[in-house]
Amino acid sequence: MKRFVDLADLGRDEVLSLLELARRLEKQPEPHALAGKQLGLLFFNPSLRTLASFQAAMARLGGSSFVINPGQGSWQLETRPDVVMDGAAAEHVREAIPVLASYCDALGIRIFAEGRDLEHDLAEGTFNAMAALTDKPLINLESAVNHPCQALADWKTLDDLAVPRAARFVLSWAYHPRALPLAVPAAALHMAALRGMEVIVLRPDGYALPAPLMERARRAAAASGGSVRETSARDEALEGAQVLYVKEWGATACYGDAAADARLRSALTDWCVREDWFAAAPECRVMHCLPVRRNTAIAAAVLDGPRSVVQREAYNRLPAQMAVLHRLLRP
Amino acid sequence: MKRFVDLADLGRDEVLSLLELARRLEKQPEPHALAGKQLGLLFFNPSLRTLASFQAAMARLGGSSFVINPGQGSWQLETRPDVVMDGAAAEHVREAIPVLASYCDALGIRIFAEGRDLEHDLAEGTFNAMAALTDKPLINLESAVNHPCQALADWKTLDDLAVPRAARFVLSWAYHPRALPLAVPAAALHMAALRGMEVIVLRPDGYALPAPLMERARRAAAASGGSVRETSARDEALEGAQVLYVKEWGATACYGDAAADARLRSALTDWCVREDWFAAAPECRVMHCLPVRRNTAIAAAVLDGPRSVVQREAYNRLPAQMAVLHRLLRP
Amino acid sequence: MKRFVDLADLGRDEVLSLLELARRLEKQPEPHALAGKQLGLLFFNPSLRTLASFQAAMARLGGSSFVINPGQGSWQLETRPDVVMDGAAAEHVREAIPVLASYCDALGIRIFAEGRDLEHDLAEGTFNAMAALTDKPLINLESAVNHPCQALADWKTLDDLAVPRAARFVLSWAYHPRALPLAVPAAALHMAALRGMEVIVLRPDGYALPAPLMERARRAAAASGGSVRETSARDEALEGAQVLYVKEWGATACYGDAAADARLRSALTDWCVREDWFAAAPECRVMHCLPVRRNTAIAAAVLDGPRSVVQREAYNRLPAQMAVLHRLLRP
Repeated sequence: MKRFVDLADLGRDEVLSLLELARRLEKQPEPHALAGKQLGLLFFNPSLRTLASFQAAMARLGGSSFVINPGQGSWQLETRPDVVMDGAAAEHVREAIPVLASYCDALGIRIFAEGRDLEHDLAEGTFNAMAALTDKPLINLESAVNHPCQALADWKTLDDLAVPRAARFVLSWAYHPRALPLAVPAAALHMAALRGMEVIVLRPDGYALPAPLMERARRAAAASGGSVRETSARDEALEGAQVLYVKEWGATACYGDAAADARLRSALTDWCVREDWFAAAPECRVMHCLPVRRNTAIAAAVLDGPRSVVQREAYNRLPAQMAVLHRLLRP
Repeated sequence: MKRFVDLADLGRDEVLSLLELARRLEKQPEPHALAGKQLGLLFFNPSLRTLASFQAAMARLGGSSFVINPGQGSWQLETRPDVVMDGAAAEHVREAIPVLASYCDALGIRIFAEGRDLEHDLAEGTFNAMAALTDKPLINLESAVNHPCQALADWKTLDDLAVPRAARFVLSWAYHPRALPLAVPAAALHMAALRGMEVIVLRPDGYALPAPLMERARRAAAASGGSVRETSARDEALEGAQVLYVKEWGATACYGDAAADARLRSALTDWCVREDWFAAAPECRVMHCLPVRRNTAIAAAVLDGPRSVVQREAYNRLPAQMAVLHRLLRP
Repeated sequence: MKRFVDLADLGRDEVLSLLELARRLEKQPEPHALAGKQLGLLFFNPSLRTLASFQAAMARLGGSSFVINPGQGSWQLETRPDVVMDGAAAEHVREAIPVLASYCDALGIRIFAEGRDLEHDLAEGTFNAMAALTDKPLINLESAVNHPCQALADWKTLDDLAVPRAARFVLSWAYHPRALPLAVPAAALHMAALRGMEVIVLRPDGYALPAPLMERARRAAAASGGSVRETSARDEALEGAQVLYVKEWGATACYGDAAADARLRSALTDWCVREDWFAAAPECRVMHCLPVRRNTAIAAAVLDGPRSVVQREAYNRLPAQMAVLHRLLRP
């Protein structure tokens, strides 16, 4: 494994091997495995879990990290190709990425979707252009439509909880005051499909996940013995579900049109997960990648109740990423 | 010791034991004592000494740290209980605190007083609610009305300078352009009382420290053979004083009313410590936790003169906190 | 070597010795050389290379670092002497510098020129006043008119590329939307002169480097067998040049007058380095310290072409600074 940018690049066996490594590192710490190794972390967008857990993961393996936040302590970086740089950005990623890579052994990059043009975001042009600028081990800390670190931690969480491979996994849209990116729903969808689960995407009209993402998940499901379908019928979807994976995202029917999206979502405030959603799914677990808005996306009672495994998911970022770092830097 | 949130929780013997450990670590470095250990630092408010000295303390003991600043590189965190999160904050501390704690071996939290309601701030509701969210070793990096790391460093400073236990310790209000929190005066008051000193709180009318803080200090003094009283008569207070501990704070007579506070303090600009304050206290040392505004709270000549021990206090944050970390993480 | 603040303080032999150490550390890593050592980094201005490469350099030698950004996570620091501090800054560098120095084994400080008064900036009063506040090993991370870390990395780059000592080195002004400080041109000028090169400063009218900087470079050149002259005739300067060192800087003819500078530079947008500059210098390398604005200061085709060695320069910050740290902290 030379890069960790997309679970789909790895295939099922490589993911299973990473998960095994994560479990081993959880039980048998290797405090010197990455002694002398350095991780560079470049965050174009805010972070809590990724920022803390990657630094912690490197430290637990004996390595260290540095963090660059363009616009905060560092200047803004230009990502668009072929521009005359007479605006706010002082430096282009064409210079910055190879430079940062030359100071470290592995580089992580976070850059969210622009949220204007769906085709552009689906193509991952911004992340891929940066990824092409270095040969160093590279980690996707969340890109336009992917978040493989979260997906790997989620898969480990499902394993930790002994959720059967064939269980019903409902990925449900939830309300948020504004349109959020597709990265986490796309990554969770693919992860559950690749794991071989019965995946149902539950979302209101206008919020269907883009066809290429659904198609990719169907291919992964087919290879893994799982299935993928979508619906807007909540009761039917949740019947017998063992996992409800909750996530907020922007309308795909009017992607990039904030006013149209706001009109659509204003009628959807009841997509806040409450206990009464689970009448026909008594054992159902609730997952969410965090951050989550209490009583907006998920009721406090659900988050604080026994269904919620959000803390386990967040914690699993640490061993999952230790496995990724170990595999990349100690091949 | 499982947490370090308030000197009053520890009692005199535990504080003396920490100070002994601090002196030992100063003389006999233990560069591997906390190898593999990780400190998480969560700053809701700005910092210079705390931010630098905790990272340095962990590094000197062989451990490492990560820093989270909500609103800078990380999103804003909601601290109020039971809210519908439709505002600026993306995540609630109910999620964030346990998550961060799961990535580290000890967690430090700084959150200043809201400065609106005195009862609320005295109850330490915000800090305590966060502290209740984790079982991990916890460090108070300054809360609404406490700053135990500063108090421990100050005690060590008094010991370093061989200030007698029974010496007169004057905690004096000083001018600042705006109302500052009560955390440091409250912590210094309690520290000096617990040390057994003759404590005098010197402050203008309207700036008396809240009765519960005075009462708690009196109990500590009684147990340690010291005393606590308050006055607005500067000459009388300073006569024979061996320590003048200078601090700016907001009016308690009109707590949370910025306009009323501003009117009160506008007449108090002469509460800037000058050399002529010490006519009847020739040996008196000047302490201040920093940051301090030169020629506003303390005259430059005093800060730069031989009375000032502010650098010693600031330096002592390092060994004091090394002792705290050592005690918490290597029990 | 007790400080690294100006190549001119060191002299040629000490620089050559540092470069030899840099090459040795590149080939023979010393992962424990600075075990237990701590570097404090104080940035009054943004940074990318310096911020990342100093943390990486300490880590590669077994040490660690902390970073303070006044105004971001820490409050603003006052640098002016003898002020009544009733403004935005909460703390004076007279307190902050010794405090931070007391937490670490070496301190680095970055503070750009104020850009108002040329005499003031040339005197390095702000940096020197801070430097005078500590006896600890000190590193200049870029001051008003100096950037010795960049200069050392640039010298190593010239050596790496086997650029002859007597080769023609053209330091050329380039266009930027606004006036930038003189630190890098001043440092590059002195470095090339001290190396013994044939140095030509190429700049439009109004942008001559200040006489004291030229004079100092001439003295260094005289001692090293090199030469220094200046011109505004591009073709003549570039003829046979082996290095074009590109940098943007503010007009010295109207230093501190942004409007006058803007009028001057508005006619100079053709000072964007293009391939056709090199007709009479086919082997000429292009250097730039970065950040650089593509298609504004240097055409993308030049930056992406074989002449550009900007990545090598940036990478060399790492071994050059490892040598500086090694020499300061392991004398």
